Amino acid sequence: MQIDIPEVVAEVSEAFQRYETALVTNDVAVLDELFWNDPRTIRYGATEILHGYAEIMEFRASRPSVGLERTLLRTVITTHGRDFATANTTFARNGRTGRQSQTWVRLPEGWRVVSAHVSLMPAES
Amino acid sequence: MQIDIPEVVAEVSEAFQRYETALVTNDVAVLDELFWNDPRTIRYGATEILHGYAEIMEFRASRPSVGLERTLLRTVITTHGRDFATANTTFARNGRTGRQSQTWVRLPEGWRVVSAHVSLMPAES
Repeated sequence: MQIDIPEVVAEVSEAFQRYETALVTNDVAVLDELFWNDPRTIRYGATEILHGYAEIMEFRASRPSVGLERTLLRTVITTHGRDFATANTTFARNGRTGRQSQTWVRLPEGWRVVSAHVSLMPAES
Repeated sequence: MQIDIPEVVAEVSEAFQRYETALVTNDVAVLDELFWNDPRTIRYGATEILHGYAEIMEFRASRPSVGLERTLLRTVITTHGRDFATANTTFARNGRTGRQSQTWVRLPEGWRVVSAHVSLMPAES
Protein backbone atom coordinates (compact mmCIF):
# COMPACT_ATOMS: atom_id res chain seq x y z
CA MET A 1 0.00 0.00 0.00
CA GLN A 2 1.48 3.28 -1.08
CA ILE A 3 2.00 5.85 1.63
CA ASP A 4 1.57 9.59 1.11
CA ILE A 5 0.51 9.65 -2.53
CA PRO A 6 0.75 13.40 -3.15
CA GLU A 7 -2.75 13.94 -4.53
CA VAL A 8 -4.30 11.91 -1.71
CA VAL A 9 -2.38 13.93 0.87
CA ALA A 10 -3.65 17.08 -0.85
CA GLU A 11 -7.25 15.86 -0.66
CA VAL A 12 -7.05 14.97 3.01
CA SER A 13 -5.22 18.20 3.82
CA GLU A 14 -8.03 20.14 2.20
CA ALA A 15 -10.66 18.22 4.19
CA PHE A 16 -8.64 18.70 7.38
CA GLN A 17 -8.39 22.45 6.79
CA ARG A 18 -12.08 22.66 6.01
CA TYR A 19 -12.80 20.98 9.33
CA GLU A 20 -10.43 23.34 11.17
CA THR A 21 -12.09 26.42 9.71
CA ALA A 22 -15.53 25.03 10.58
CA LEU A 23 -14.37 24.28 14.11
CA VAL A 24 -13.09 27.74 14.97
CA THR A 25 -16.09 29.45 13.32
CA ASN A 26 -18.53 26.94 14.85
CA ASP A 27 -19.92 26.01 11.43
CA VAL A 28 -21.96 23.11 12.77
CA ALA A 29 -23.31 22.07 9.37
CA VAL A 30 -19.81 21.47 8.02
CA LEU A 31 -18.65 19.77 11.22
CA ASP A 32 -21.61 17.42 10.99
CA GLU A 33 -21.02 16.83 7.29
CA LEU A 34 -17.40 15.79 7.82
CA PHE A 35 -18.12 13.11 10.41
CA TRP A 36 -19.18 9.66 9.27
CA ASN A 37 -22.95 9.35 9.67
CA ASP A 38 -22.88 6.01 11.44
CA PRO A 39 -23.52 4.60 14.92
CA ARG A 40 -19.89 3.35 14.96
CA THR A 41 -18.36 6.82 14.73
CA ILE A 42 -16.55 7.80 17.90
CA ARG A 43 -15.41 11.15 19.19
CA TYR A 44 -13.55 11.38 22.47
CA GLY A 45 -13.48 15.11 23.27
CA ALA A 46 -11.64 17.13 25.88
CA THR A 47 -14.42 16.52 28.41
CA GLU A 48 -16.82 14.15 26.66
CA ILE A 49 -17.12 10.59 25.39
CA LEU A 50 -19.40 10.36 22.36
CA HIS A 51 -20.45 7.09 20.75
CA GLY A 52 -22.20 7.32 17.41
CA TYR A 53 -23.07 10.11 15.02
CA ALA A 54 -26.25 11.08 16.88
CA GLU A 55 -24.36 11.86 20.10
CA ILE A 56 -21.75 13.84 18.16
CA MET A 57 -24.41 15.92 16.39
CA GLU A 58 -26.15 16.60 19.70
CA PHE A 59 -22.87 17.74 21.23
CA ARG A 60 -22.17 20.11 18.33
CA ALA A 61 -25.61 21.63 18.56
CA SER A 62 -25.29 22.38 22.27
CA ARG A 63 -21.67 23.49 22.32
CA PRO A 64 -20.87 27.08 23.32
CA SER A 65 -19.78 28.98 20.24
CA VAL A 66 -17.27 31.30 21.87
CA GLY A 67 -13.61 30.78 22.73
CA LEU A 68 -13.06 28.26 19.95
CA GLU A 69 -10.03 29.97 18.44
CA ARG A 70 -6.83 27.97 18.54
CA THR A 71 -3.42 27.89 16.90
CA LEU A 72 -2.20 24.68 15.28
CA LEU A 73 1.34 23.88 16.34
CA ARG A 74 2.46 20.73 14.56
CA THR A 75 0.28 18.85 12.08
CA VAL A 76 1.09 15.47 10.55
CA ILE A 77 -1.16 14.02 7.85
CA THR A 78 -0.29 10.55 6.59
CA THR A 79 -2.19 8.62 3.94
CA HIS A 80 -2.23 4.86 3.34
CA GLY A 81 -3.33 3.91 -0.16
CA ARG A 82 -6.06 6.09 -1.63
CA ASP A 83 -8.80 5.71 0.95
CA PHE A 84 -7.30 5.96 4.45
CA ALA A 85 -5.54 8.67 6.35
CA THR A 86 -4.62 9.90 9.79
CA ALA A 87 -4.43 13.57 10.71
CA ASN A 88 -2.78 14.50 13.98
CA THR A 89 -2.14 17.95 15.28
CA THR A 90 -1.09 19.70 18.44
CA PHE A 91 -2.61 23.09 19.19
CA ALA A 92 -2.57 26.00 21.64
CA ARG A 93 -5.77 27.45 23.11
CA ASN A 94 -6.10 29.71 26.14
CA GLY A 95 -2.57 28.95 27.29
CA ARG A 96 -3.08 25.18 27.19
CA THR A 97 -1.63 22.65 24.76
CA GLY A 98 -4.04 20.21 23.12
CA ARG A 99 -3.84 17.29 20.75
CA GLN A 100 -6.33 16.25 18.07
CA SER A 101 -6.26 12.90 16.29
CA GLN A 102 -8.55 12.04 13.40
CA THR A 103 -8.87 8.96 11.25
CA TRP A 104 -10.25 9.77 7.81
CA VAL A 105 -11.77 7.30 5.34
CA ARG A 106 -12.84 7.97 1.77
CA LEU A 107 -16.48 6.89 1.69
CA PRO A 108 -18.88 7.08 -1.28
CA GLU A 109 -20.01 10.49 0.06
CA GLY A 110 -16.43 11.81 0.39
CA TRP A 111 -13.68 11.91 3.01
CA ARG A 112 -15.15 11.52 6.48
CA VAL A 113 -13.79 11.35 10.03
CA VAL A 114 -14.62 7.89 11.37
CA SER A 115 -12.85 8.35 14.71
CA ALA A 116 -11.57 11.40 16.57
CA HIS A 117 -9.85 12.07 19.88
CA VAL A 118 -9.16 15.48 21.38
CA SER A 119 -7.46 16.07 24.71
CA LEU A 120 -5.59 18.74 26.62
CA MET A 121 -2.22 18.16 28.20
CA PRO A 122 -2.44 18.17 32.00
CA ALA A 123 -2.28 21.69 33.40
CA GLU A 124 1.11 22.69 34.79
CA SER A 125 1.10 22.26 38.54
CA MET B 1 -15.36 -0.70 0.78
CA GLN B 2 -16.72 -3.33 3.08
CA ILE B 3 -17.01 -2.46 6.74
CA ASP B 4 -16.49 -4.99 9.52
CA ILE B 5 -15.64 -8.08 7.48
CA PRO B 6 -15.80 -10.68 10.27
CA GLU B 7 -12.35 -12.23 9.71
CA VAL B 8 -10.72 -8.81 9.53
CA VAL B 9 -12.42 -7.73 12.75
CA ALA B 10 -11.15 -10.97 14.32
CA GLU B 11 -7.58 -10.23 13.21
CA VAL B 12 -7.60 -6.69 14.54
CA SER B 13 -9.28 -7.77 17.77
CA GLU B 14 -6.50 -10.28 18.30
CA ALA B 15 -3.82 -7.63 17.67
CA PHE B 16 -5.66 -5.21 19.97
CA GLN B 17 -5.83 -7.79 22.75
CA ARG B 18 -2.18 -8.66 22.27
CA TYR B 19 -1.33 -5.00 22.70
CA GLU B 20 -3.52 -4.72 25.80
CA THR B 21 -1.84 -7.70 27.45
CA ALA B 22 1.60 -6.31 26.59
CA LEU B 23 0.63 -2.94 28.01
CA VAL B 24 -0.50 -4.12 31.42
CA THR B 25 2.45 -6.52 31.73
CA ASN B 26 4.91 -3.92 30.37
CA ASP B 27 6.07 -6.29 27.62
CA VAL B 28 8.10 -3.62 25.86
CA ALA B 29 9.21 -5.90 23.01
CA VAL B 30 5.63 -6.57 21.97
CA LEU B 31 4.60 -2.94 22.42
CA ASP B 32 7.47 -1.89 20.17
CA GLU B 33 6.65 -4.60 17.65
CA LEU B 34 3.04 -3.48 17.31
CA PHE B 35 3.81 0.14 16.48
CA TRP B 36 4.69 1.08 12.93
CA ASN B 37 8.47 1.48 12.68
CA ASP B 38 8.41 4.81 10.90
CA PRO B 39 9.19 8.47 11.64
CA ARG B 40 5.55 9.32 10.83
CA THR B 41 4.11 7.23 13.68
CA ILE B 42 2.52 9.37 16.35
CA ARG B 43 1.57 8.59 19.92
CA TYR B 44 -0.09 11.22 22.05
CA GLY B 45 0.00 9.81 25.58
CA ALA B 46 -1.64 10.89 28.81
CA THR B 47 1.26 13.24 29.55
CA GLU B 48 3.50 13.07 26.48
CA ILE B 49 3.60 13.99 22.80
CA LEU B 50 5.70 11.54 20.80
CA HIS B 51 6.56 12.01 17.13
CA GLY B 52 8.13 9.06 15.38
CA TYR B 53 8.92 5.48 16.29
CA ALA B 54 12.24 6.39 17.95
CA GLU B 55 10.56 8.67 20.49
CA ILE B 56 7.91 6.04 21.20
CA MET B 57 10.55 3.33 21.80
CA GLU B 58 12.49 5.64 24.09
CA PHE B 59 9.34 6.37 26.09
CA ARG B 60 8.54 2.67 26.46
CA ALA B 61 12.03 1.89 27.65
CA SER B 62 11.96 4.56 30.35
CA ARG B 63 8.38 4.07 31.52
CA PRO B 64 7.76 2.92 35.10
CA SER B 65 6.54 -0.66 35.02
CA VAL B 66 4.20 -0.52 38.01
CA GLY B 67 0.57 0.61 38.24
CA LEU B 68 -0.21 -0.28 34.64
CA GLU B 69 -3.27 -2.40 35.39
CA ARG B 70 -6.51 -1.10 33.96
CA THR B 71 -10.01 -2.29 33.19
CA LEU B 72 -11.43 -1.81 29.71
CA LEU B 73 -14.94 -0.38 29.84
CA ARG B 74 -16.25 -0.06 26.30
CA THR B 75 -14.28 -1.13 23.25
CA VAL B 76 -15.28 -0.47 19.65
CA ILE B 77 -13.24 -1.98 16.81
CA THR B 78 -14.28 -1.04 13.28
CA THR B 79 -12.59 -2.21 10.09
CA HIS B 80 -12.72 -0.60 6.64
CA GLY B 81 -11.83 -2.98 3.86
CA ARG B 82 -9.12 -5.53 4.67
CA ASP B 83 -6.24 -3.27 5.63
CA PHE B 84 -7.51 -0.48 7.84
CA ALA B 85 -9.11 -0.32 11.27
CA THR B 86 -9.80 1.85 14.27
CA ALA B 87 -9.81 0.55 17.83
CA ASN B 88 -11.25 2.79 20.51
CA THR B 89 -11.70 1.96 24.14
CA THR B 90 -12.51 3.63 27.41
CA PHE B 91 -10.85 2.31 30.55
CA ALA B 92 -10.64 2.71 34.31
CA ARG B 93 -7.32 3.03 36.15
CA ASN B 94 -6.74 4.25 39.70
CA GLY B 95 -10.22 5.74 39.92
CA ARG B 96 -9.85 7.74 36.70
CA THR B 97 -11.50 7.21 33.34
CA GLY B 98 -9.28 7.13 30.28
CA ARG B 99 -9.70 6.82 26.55
CA GLN B 100 -7.41 5.10 24.04
CA SER B 101 -7.69 5.50 20.28
CA GLN B 102 -5.59 3.51 17.84
CA THR B 103 -5.49 3.45 14.06
CA TRP B 104 -4.29 0.10 12.74
CA VAL B 105 -2.99 -0.61 9.23
CA ARG B 106 -2.11 -3.97 7.72
CA LEU B 107 1.48 -3.54 6.58
CA PRO B 108 3.70 -6.16 4.93
CA GLU B 109 5.02 -7.02 8.43
CA GLY B 110 1.50 -7.39 9.90
CA TRP B 111 -1.09 -5.20 11.62
CA ARG B 112 0.56 -2.13 13.15
CA VAL B 113 -0.58 0.95 15.07
CA VAL B 114 0.21 3.97 12.92
CA SER B 115 -1.35 6.52 15.26
CA ALA B 116 -2.43 6.40 18.89
CA HIS B 117 -3.92 8.82 21.39
CA VAL B 118 -4.41 8.17 25.10
CA SER B 119 -5.90 10.65 27.53
CA LEU B 120 -7.57 10.81 30.91
CA MET B 121 -10.88 12.54 31.50
CA PRO B 122 -10.41 15.66 33.62
CA ALA B 123 -10.41 14.83 37.33
CA GLU B 124 -13.69 15.54 39.15
CA SER B 125 -13.44 18.89 40.87
